[in-house]
Amino acid sequence: MAGYIPGEQPRDGTYIKLNTNENPYPPSPRVFEAIRAALTGNHLRKYPDPLGTAFRETAGKILGVNPEAILIGNGSDDVLTIVTRSFVSDSGVIVSLTPSYLLYRTLAEIQGAGFKEVPFTENWELPAPWPLSKASLTFVSNPNSPSGTTAAISEFRGLLEELSGPLVIDEAYVDFADQSALPLAQCPNVIVTRSLSKSYSLAGIRFGFAVADPPLIREMVKVKDSYNCDVLSLAAATAALEDQEYMKTNRSRILATRTVLERSLVNLGFAVAPSQANFVWCRRHKQPAKPLYEELKRRMILVRYMNYPGYGDGLRITVGTDAEIARLIEELKQLV
Amino acid sequence: MAGYIPGEQPRDGTYIKLNTNENPYPPSPRVFEAIRAALTGNHLRKYPDPLGTAFRETAGKILGVNPEAILIGNGSDDVLTIVTRSFVSDSGVIVSLTPSYLLYRTLAEIQGAGFKEVPFTENWELPAPWPLSKASLTFVSNPNSPSGTTAAISEFRGLLEELSGPLVIDEAYVDFADQSALPLAQCPNVIVTRSLSKSYSLAGIRFGFAVADPPLIREMVKVKDSYNCDVLSLAAATAALEDQEYMKTNRSRILATRTVLERSLVNLGFAVAPSQANFVWCRRHKQPAKPLYEELKRRMILVRYMNYPGYGDGLRITVGTDAEIARLIEELKQLV
Repeated sequence: MAGYIPGEQPRDGTYIKLNTNENPYPPSPRVFEAIRAALTGNHLRKYPDPLGTAFRETAGKILGVNPEAILIGNGSDDVLTIVTRSFVSDSGVIVSLTPSYLLYRTLAEIQGAGFKEVPFTENWELPAPWPLSKASLTFVSNPNSPSGTTAAISEFRGLLEELSGPLVIDEAYVDFADQSALPLAQCPNVIVTRSLSKSYSLAGIRFGFAVADPPLIREMVKVKDSYNCDVLSLAAATAALEDQEYMKTNRSRILATRTVLERSLVNLGFAVAPSQANFVWCRRHKQPAKPLYEELKRRMILVRYMNYPGYGDGLRITVGTDAEIARLIEELKQLV
Repeated sequence: MAGYIPGEQPRDGTYIKLNTNENPYPPSPRVFEAIRAALTGNHLRKYPDPLGTAFRETAGKILGVNPEAILIGNGSDDVLTIVTRSFVSDSGVIVSLTPSYLLYRTLAEIQGAGFKEVPFTENWELPAPWPLSKASLTFVSNPNSPSGTTAAISEFRGLLEELSGPLVIDEAYVDFADQSALPLAQCPNVIVTRSLSKSYSLAGIRFGFAVADPPLIREMVKVKDSYNCDVLSLAAATAALEDQEYMKTNRSRILATRTVLERSLVNLGFAVAPSQANFVWCRRHKQPAKPLYEELKRRMILVRYMNYPGYGDGLRITVGTDAEIARLIEELKQLV
C-alpha cells in the first residue's frame, strides 16, 4: 500500500504556496482571543470535552441543525476516517467518482475494503448510471477536488433511493460555493462533512465535523478516539464559526480573485473548469502540465500537479492573494 | 458494539477530579510560551508538518533514539488506533492482559478482529504460558492500568521470540515508574507508545508518540491521517519535552503524594496494588467498591470505579495534590 501523499509542505516559508488550498488570509481575531483564553485555568492539563458540546451548540445554532446531529473531528480527514471505520468492513466496497479526492481510495485500502471509481462526464457532471447500489459507502466531494465543480443538490436526492450504505457529501470547500447539501443531512442515510481548514483559515489547528441523522452520529461517536479534538482547537473552531461576517468577507475577496485567476488562465490558453471552490483546475491540451509545475516550483511558486490514470494531468491552483496570483500569471506568461 | 466509555469529564469544574489520571500540576511555563509563539506568523492558516520533524528531532535527542524511529499521534489513543489499523485485519486477533486498558478490546471490535485476553496472576505478574503466538498484535500496558503495577522489562525479551505480530508496550504512565522498555524498541517487532497527557500535564492538547524500528514507523505513517497533529500541540509537546527538569520535579511531588495515599488506604483496610503510576488501584475484600465511588461523588470527589468480568471491582484513584488526597482520605474515613 502506498498511502495518501499530501501536497508538499516546505517548512522554509519562502514559497508562494498555491498547492494545498490554504486560505491566504489569517483566521478571525476572535480565534486568537479564544486560544489565549483557553491557556488560562486548567484547560491544558485536563482532558477536553469528548463530544465538544460547546462547539456543537454553536455550530447547531449557526447552521440551523440539531447539535446531536454533529460529530467533531480532528480535521475533515479524521471525520472521513471515522465514517469509513464505522460503515465499511473488509468485505465492503467504497465508491467514489474520479478524478476526485485521492484519500477515498487510501481509506478503502487501509480498511482492506474494495474500491470502485466511476468517471465524471467530460463536463464534470454526475455520470448515469451511478452510483453502485451495493456500496457500503459512497463519497462525493462537492465542490469536487481537483475540478472545483459542483453537482446540483437535487441530483443527490435521486441517488439516495438507490444506495444501501450512507452517502458522504464531502463539503470541505462548500463555503466558496453557491449551494450546500446540508438540508439532505436530515435524511437517514446522508453524512455531510465540513472542514475549517479552508474558509476559516484554520488548516494548522485541524478541525472538521460531520452533520448527519443523530443515530448515525451516535454510531460514529463509538468509533472515534474519545478525545479526538483538543481544547485549543475546540476553542478556535467555536470562535471561528461565531465570526461569520469575517469568514464571508474573506470568501468575497477569494471569489473576486478566483474570477481574475480564471480569466487570466483562459487568456493564456488554459482549459479551466468552472470553480466553486478556493482553487482552479486547469489543463493545456497541447502541453503536458508537469514541466509547468516544475518550472513554477523553480521560480518559488508551488502549485499542485495531478495526474489521474485514464484521465490525464493538470494543475490545481489555490486562489491566493491578488498579489500572489498576479505573480503566478506573470510567470506563466513566460512559460506558455 | 458498545464503544469505549472514557472517565467522566464534568465541565463545571467543582469536583476534585481523581478519576482520569490527569496531572494536578500545570504544564511547564515553556509550553505556554511555545503556544503563544505559534500564534504569530502564518501557522494557524497553514497545514502543519505532517511528520512533526521538529518534535521528532527533540524527542530523539532527549530519549536517545533515531528521529526516524518516532511516530507522532493525536494522543496516545491515536497511536494505538494507528497501530491497530496498520497490523490487524478482520481475520486477525488482538491479545491483551486483563484487567487492563479497556480500549484494547474496543479497538479490536472496531476493526472487526478477534480479541483474546489473558488474566494477570493474582499478584499482577505476567501469566505463563503467555502470550498467544498467533496474535496479530499484543498489547501490554506497562505500568498497567488499573493496577499501576509493572512487569520487569527482562520478561518481555523472552516473549518476543514467541510472537509473530508486533508487541505494543503502552508506556502512557512510564515516567512515574522505575524502568522503561524503550531499549526494546530497537527490536524489529516492538512498538513502545508514550503519552504527554500524564507526566507532562498535557491531557488537553492531545499528544502521544510511538517509538519503533523505522520500517514499522514508515508503515504506520501510511495509515495515520496526514495531518494528525496540529501546530499548537506540536509546539506544546516539543516545549514540554525540552523541559525535563520541570517534569521530573512534578514527578517527584506526585511520587511522594502517592506514598502517602497508598499508606493511608492500607491504614483504612484497603488492599492496594504497588503502584508505579500516577494512580493507585485499591479494593476492599468485604465491601463492594461502587457505593464508595457513589458516596465520594456525592461529596464532590470523582474517582474511577471499575468492575472487570471474572475479576471483580475496585477504585482507581489518581494521585492529586497533597490537599486533594488529604481531603479524599478524610472522606473515606467516614465511609469505611
